[in-house]
Amino acid sequence: MAQEIFKDIPKIKYEGPQSKNPLSFKYYEADRVIDGKPLKDYLKYAMAWWHNLGFAGVDMFGAGTADKHFGSKTLGTVEHAHAKVDAGFEFMSKLGIEYFCFHDADLVPEGDTLAESNKRLDEIAEHIVAKQKATGIKCLWGTANLFSNARFLNGAGSSNSADVYAYAAAQIKKALDLTVKFGGLGYAFWGGREGYETLLNTDVKFEQENIANLMHLAVNYGRSIGFKGDFYIEPKPKEPTKHQYDFDAATTIGFIRQYGLEKDFKLNIEANHATLAGHTFQHDLRISAINGMLGSVDANTGDAQLGWDTDEFPWSVYDTTYAMYEILKSGGLTGGLNFDSKQRRPSYTNEDLFYGYILGMDAFALGLIKAKALIADGRLDNFVKERYASFGSGIGAKIRDHSATLVELAEYAEKKGTVPLPGSGRQEFLESVVNQVLFQ
Amino acid sequence: MAQEIFKDIPKIKYEGPQSKNPLSFKYYEADRVIDGKPLKDYLKYAMAWWHNLGFAGVDMFGAGTADKHFGSKTLGTVEHAHAKVDAGFEFMSKLGIEYFCFHDADLVPEGDTLAESNKRLDEIAEHIVAKQKATGIKCLWGTANLFSNARFLNGAGSSNSADVYAYAAAQIKKALDLTVKFGGLGYAFWGGREGYETLLNTDVKFEQENIANLMHLAVNYGRSIGFKGDFYIEPKPKEPTKHQYDFDAATTIGFIRQYGLEKDFKLNIEANHATLAGHTFQHDLRISAINGMLGSVDANTGDAQLGWDTDEFPWSVYDTTYAMYEILKSGGLTGGLNFDSKQRRPSYTNEDLFYGYILGMDAFALGLIKAKALIADGRLDNFVKERYASFGSGIGAKIRDHSATLVELAEYAEKKGTVPLPGSGRQEFLESVVNQVLFQ
Amino acid sequence: MAQEIFKDIPKIKYEGPQSKNPLSFKYYEADRVIDGKPLKDYLKYAMAWWHNLGFAGVDMFGAGTADKHFGSKTLGTVEHAHAKVDAGFEFMSKLGIEYFCFHDADLVPEGDTLAESNKRLDEIAEHIVAKQKATGIKCLWGTANLFSNARFLNGAGSSNSADVYAYAAAQIKKALDLTVKFGGLGYAFWGGREGYETLLNTDVKFEQENIANLMHLAVNYGRSIGFKGDFYIEPKPKEPTKHQYDFDAATTIGFIRQYGLEKDFKLNIEANHATLAGHTFQHDLRISAINGMLGSVDANTGDAQLGWDTDEFPWSVYDTTYAMYEILKSGGLTGGLNFDSKQRRPSYTNEDLFYGYILGMDAFALGLIKAKALIADGRLDNFVKERYASFGSGIGAKIRDHSATLVELAEYAEKKGTVPLPGSGRQEFLESVVNQVLFQ
Amino acid sequence: MAQEIFKDIPKIKYEGPQSKNPLSFKYYEADRVIDGKPLKDYLKYAMAWWHNLGFAGVDMFGAGTADKHFGSKTLGTVEHAHAKVDAGFEFMSKLGIEYFCFHDADLVPEGDTLAESNKRLDEIAEHIVAKQKATGIKCLWGTANLFSNARFLNGAGSSNSADVYAYAAAQIKKALDLTVKFGGLGYAFWGGREGYETLLNTDVKFEQENIANLMHLAVNYGRSIGFKGDFYIEPKPKEPTKHQYDFDAATTIGFIRQYGLEKDFKLNIEANHATLAGHTFQHDLRISAINGMLGSVDANTGDAQLGWDTDEFPWSVYDTTYAMYEILKSGGLTGGLNFDSKQRRPSYTNEDLFYGYILGMDAFALGLIKAKALIADGRLDNFVKERYASFGSGIGAKIRDHSATLVELAEYAEKKGTVPLPGSGRQEFLESVVNQVLFQ
Repeated sequence: MAQEIFKDIPKIKYEGPQSKNPLSFKYYEADRVIDGKPLKDYLKYAMAWWHNLGFAGVDMFGAGTADKHFGSKTLGTVEHAHAKVDAGFEFMSKLGIEYFCFHDADLVPEGDTLAESNKRLDEIAEHIVAKQKATGIKCLWGTANLFSNARFLNGAGSSNSADVYAYAAAQIKKALDLTVKFGGLGYAFWGGREGYETLLNTDVKFEQENIANLMHLAVNYGRSIGFKGDFYIEPKPKEPTKHQYDFDAATTIGFIRQYGLEKDFKLNIEANHATLAGHTFQHDLRISAINGMLGSVDANTGDAQLGWDTDEFPWSVYDTTYAMYEILKSGGLTGGLNFDSKQRRPSYTNEDLFYGYILGMDAFALGLIKAKALIADGRLDNFVKERYASFGSGIGAKIRDHSATLVELAEYAEKKGTVPLPGSGRQEFLESVVNQVLFQ
Repeated sequence: MAQEIFKDIPKIKYEGPQSKNPLSFKYYEADRVIDGKPLKDYLKYAMAWWHNLGFAGVDMFGAGTADKHFGSKTLGTVEHAHAKVDAGFEFMSKLGIEYFCFHDADLVPEGDTLAESNKRLDEIAEHIVAKQKATGIKCLWGTANLFSNARFLNGAGSSNSADVYAYAAAQIKKALDLTVKFGGLGYAFWGGREGYETLLNTDVKFEQENIANLMHLAVNYGRSIGFKGDFYIEPKPKEPTKHQYDFDAATTIGFIRQYGLEKDFKLNIEANHATLAGHTFQHDLRISAINGMLGSVDANTGDAQLGWDTDEFPWSVYDTTYAMYEILKSGGLTGGLNFDSKQRRPSYTNEDLFYGYILGMDAFALGLIKAKALIADGRLDNFVKERYASFGSGIGAKIRDHSATLVELAEYAEKKGTVPLPGSGRQEFLESVVNQVLFQ
Repeated sequence: MAQEIFKDIPKIKYEGPQSKNPLSFKYYEADRVIDGKPLKDYLKYAMAWWHNLGFAGVDMFGAGTADKHFGSKTLGTVEHAHAKVDAGFEFMSKLGIEYFCFHDADLVPEGDTLAESNKRLDEIAEHIVAKQKATGIKCLWGTANLFSNARFLNGAGSSNSADVYAYAAAQIKKALDLTVKFGGLGYAFWGGREGYETLLNTDVKFEQENIANLMHLAVNYGRSIGFKGDFYIEPKPKEPTKHQYDFDAATTIGFIRQYGLEKDFKLNIEANHATLAGHTFQHDLRISAINGMLGSVDANTGDAQLGWDTDEFPWSVYDTTYAMYEILKSGGLTGGLNFDSKQRRPSYTNEDLFYGYILGMDAFALGLIKAKALIADGRLDNFVKERYASFGSGIGAKIRDHSATLVELAEYAEKKGTVPLPGSGRQEFLESVVNQVLFQ
Repeated sequence: MAQEIFKDIPKIKYEGPQSKNPLSFKYYEADRVIDGKPLKDYLKYAMAWWHNLGFAGVDMFGAGTADKHFGSKTLGTVEHAHAKVDAGFEFMSKLGIEYFCFHDADLVPEGDTLAESNKRLDEIAEHIVAKQKATGIKCLWGTANLFSNARFLNGAGSSNSADVYAYAAAQIKKALDLTVKFGGLGYAFWGGREGYETLLNTDVKFEQENIANLMHLAVNYGRSIGFKGDFYIEPKPKEPTKHQYDFDAATTIGFIRQYGLEKDFKLNIEANHATLAGHTFQHDLRISAINGMLGSVDANTGDAQLGWDTDEFPWSVYDTTYAMYEILKSGGLTGGLNFDSKQRRPSYTNEDLFYGYILGMDAFALGLIKAKALIADGRLDNFVKERYASFGSGIGAKIRDHSATLVELAEYAEKKGTVPLPGSGRQEFLESVVNQVLFQ
């Protein structure tokens, strides 16, 4: 049996907001039922294999600070990969997290050949499946890492090399196999390098067509092996490249429709990516939802003063409340809430791994509770409903059913004479309502 | 006959880069022919009625600095509107500008009623048409101002008030009438307030449907009165609202396709709006071009350190070169280059009006000359062509014609063994090529 | 007696967080005592004359939406100025606000001459003083508007015109007279145009010397007429100008020290200005505090996605808690909390005026309560104290008392051998503590 | 003798703007004399050891792409360190670069102990000194890397650990020894982690005092071993930390004065850091210059659309012209132009190393030539001189010599009556002048 890695960490339990025990949940009570459903079913939390098991605190200016050996002797070995599996399932079990997300490259170190990599993946997959059976922990989504290896320096689907493109296809095939093996609910594309460094050397249309083709190929293969879940695209505006094609939700939805992918694809919205694109997290959730494409969420937060991807654990209950509000309003996710989040570099101890997740899980639990309360309160919804009332009858109804022409509207307006202002937006009042619900 | 307003300003002529005469063109030689076409036909410069004749330097913290009476007694009167016509045509004639762009609200002060406003517009239209006949100056595009009047505080197509929506329709109808009367090449939509201040009070889907409907109504009406030009949407991410729906080129193209407007609509790309959205000017031109939607251009520039719309006269020959490069590559514009630009507030004299346009017209003339030289040089084009060569045959060709499956690609990759890096992107070399062409 | 302007608005009272009355405080209980002092003494709220009485919703793309006649016949008249006094004092009384802030130009419309302007100011001052006596309402600080009039297009102290400089001096003199007359606690400088549009035409050193001189002149005059309060500089990075000299707290503190102004000057920190400079509000408060220069606060908030000054009413209880935390730790303000905030343009009714202030006053009251709770909780303070413990003895103590040389430290380090990591920063845990205190 | 690494690369020579040889200078003619001084003496170009010899293209999302073995067997060994010395001097010789900059950690891999590290440094130093003698190549400045090792996770001078502080002191001592040994013109501090991740755990004042003390210790030691050059601080606003203390030039100058370091310290201004702080490169150069603290320059450029440090090779001749304009006006640098620049990740070949430097060296050579031409043209200088003429006599002169009081100025203004506007800033005209000089 695997050694216990987090020996000093007990199973994390709900102790309520008065508890002074740092290793307890203050708000996340997994089995508490709201409107007939337990919190954990609203909040399908997932552990991100890469950050939690792989990221040691390296940044562009410094080495890692955390020890991620998890009892293995040498980082970057297959032995280490197994140690990560054990540590990961222990970690999820202790936190009561029921899902994980992975890239192929998170699971094992790449081999010298595809065949070797795939062999390693098969080996580790057995280990993971065994752990899944033992714990009941499930896979939220899988993906292939098509951005870290040097071969993907111009991206995968966007690569100028047909061989690299084929290599990417092979990785996607294997990652789909693994996702199906793990019972994954979804399969994700994040185009880390699907974009450009400079337009001086780039044929944008050519690359976008190739990317779309690769997605169609993935869908065809996935369906052929029985994958029934959603495919996700995760928008991000920039970083690591100068400009990514999947800039934000609206851009990506346009792409999905342009290339006929809308039957199979939804979006995986990451909070920090939305804000880097100049939107709020809530905005990109809303845009996805009203287009029927809100699939899953990467639950993290950026820093409003910083211009890069910080992947911080979500702490703002405003943000989590607005996020859960959009998710509840849209009928929920087909995926879940994946903590694509990492501890700050100075938070390098094992305890910090847990503190990060406790922060995030509590923040989203509060977000759910507060979003439910906002809906129950009804003042926001009622205000919106009243606000558009003029389109319910008369000329408004004719506008809505498209029966009025421009000429008819112009005649109406001329007859009408003066037009009153359309009513106050009441933003400050509505913000007070939110504070009142948050701080009861 | 109208009095001469810019008495001290001679007709601006090309004098070449050695001239010390500030009131001369150094690079813009209107009749110089390149590849069989004179510069002025590549560069259909337009005067923006609003900035040039209406804007006196007001900003959020201070009053106007420039005198825009143009010989009239009182600002904001019909008399003043006529003075603006005279001054505008004198201005364009002196600069050799052959086009203008306008909003309805630029032409005359709004009346107390639609009927009164329309009467004033009819009166001023006669004046303008007479001036057009006398000078040969044409209309690039027209539009309705659906953002300045308080009634549009929640936008026009996006308004929560059906009456305001109808009022907007009436203005659009009239602006289309005027555009046709002036022989306008296009009709533009800029959704200044088509967006939201807060999601707390907004039904995004409802508003977007209404906006699309209004555009369809405008097309139907426009075509019914013989308007044959393009309709344009001008993307802008934000300002004055917290968030506009037409965020950038990609978002707007998605919207145009989603609502079936692609037969009639193209984009009017404004440099400063692209950069506020987190893109380069060149990027939004490229995205428009590869989607067949590059229609017209608002020629200005923002400030890379400032987060709002500064509408500066374009000065960077890098920017104008890259812009003209995209425009030439896409086969040219259906519209032209509208100087949606304004002098800095301390540049408040009549001379400054001319200096601004001279700066912009020279910068774009240089841009055209340099873009032509870049294409003639051929190194950029050849590099791009070579870069994607692997898709011309073998597995690459099968990818391009969609005959390869994921399984086939994976098998190919496995057989291939190691994959070489896809070749250097040579960005620094290409940037040197650009400098070499710019500074010969 | 003045007519009641806000007839439909009752006096706003504390009704607690369960109240559904929108015209009530949920958290601000003015007379509630914490640690021996009532809330209102911790929170010296001030009304900003300009926004509340002068701003009608104009922005760069549209006209005002709100009616600011306050019963007078014509905007911009002396009659209107008196109506604003009546409305302002009624407004403050109804909200229980005990302070106001003003620019000279807010109080009366400028006359054609300085003498005329000053006469009008004298007239309105009598009215204000009478109202102050009747209500007990005080002046937080006064200032001169040296940025709106066209004459200040290159700033005041930074102007290239000696005549403009002298004019500014005259306005400062009068504004100081008024501030003393109103018993103002402070006098503020905001260098709206003290900066540059382009370095191409600017002598930065010359301008900075002139600005410093103007401040010295103001101090000398102020002290000569008995003004005993603090002078404040309010940093802002940019807008309306391309670049202001008083970029942020650190820059301004450097300027104050460089020109020997530190005996008389402190900072007035505006939340939205700090964020526009790339800092948090809390950062600029902390920098001011540790330099002994935290004087007063402009209580508003920006929008994290927008690049300009939005002056929104503060709503984030995180921000207000962190702000009050810094203020409490620094021993309080010599000034107060001035709501340099304005309703969003669509919030154009009289009710919205109150909703905005209720939002802000409640948010800061919660901020105070939560900051007190954070301090009482002690976990933050204790963590910080422990974190630096190594400097309390041994080599650390020698570093602190400057008795160790570089050579000695190097020898110590060499002997020491390996150096352990300095301990986790525990950011995620500390953020959980904050949430726990906020959401009890 | 060391093997030749860049065998296929000839010595790079000036061939003029018409040359199609990519491995030639188009503008940088080292020995061309302008105003009595050769270009190379105006442009003391330096190679940055870290980027050029150490950086392989790693970013936060992917592995290195370039091969930096330089003929050695294993990266990160002392053998590799020697190979870097050989490659570096060959590289500099081929480009005609006469200076280099280094961190201790660039030169050799850190040993397990300080003693071991220092031994390695002594060994490599012998190699470097020998190369210096053989080639005449000099050291621009040295520094200690106090940010990459995990021990510096909370910075060095700012660390909460006295032991880490002492370790940093030891590294500084050794780096100073090396700098003196190499004849370095300066010694630099870049506070990569001297700042905070969160204010929740930080005592800003305590840390700033410790940082200042460490600088004093470095000065004392440096002077004791005969170091006569300048100490430099290199401002940067953020990254890797949330917030660095040396935010920008103004902040750092304030710090230098506050802690009495102005006799020994100047600034090293990095272009990309200035823009990340919200300034232009030119701005931070100007601010440094007018405070007598412009010491040296890190010559690179950021990307106006990206919010992180991209360290691109400078390509914009506008930027290099404005930079050289400031440098010339301030009388030149005590340091030089260090290419703290790196090729884009897809530019991974040896040729790209040269293309990057050719781009940057040509861009700055053009910048120098154009800046000289701007000064010779005289229109900018004359405009500025005229602009402030009103302070040359009368009331203006009394303002400048501080003989006028506020009362006197107010009386002057009142007598004066109306004040004319202060004259147009002529920004657009001046921008045209710049284009005219650039594109002759």
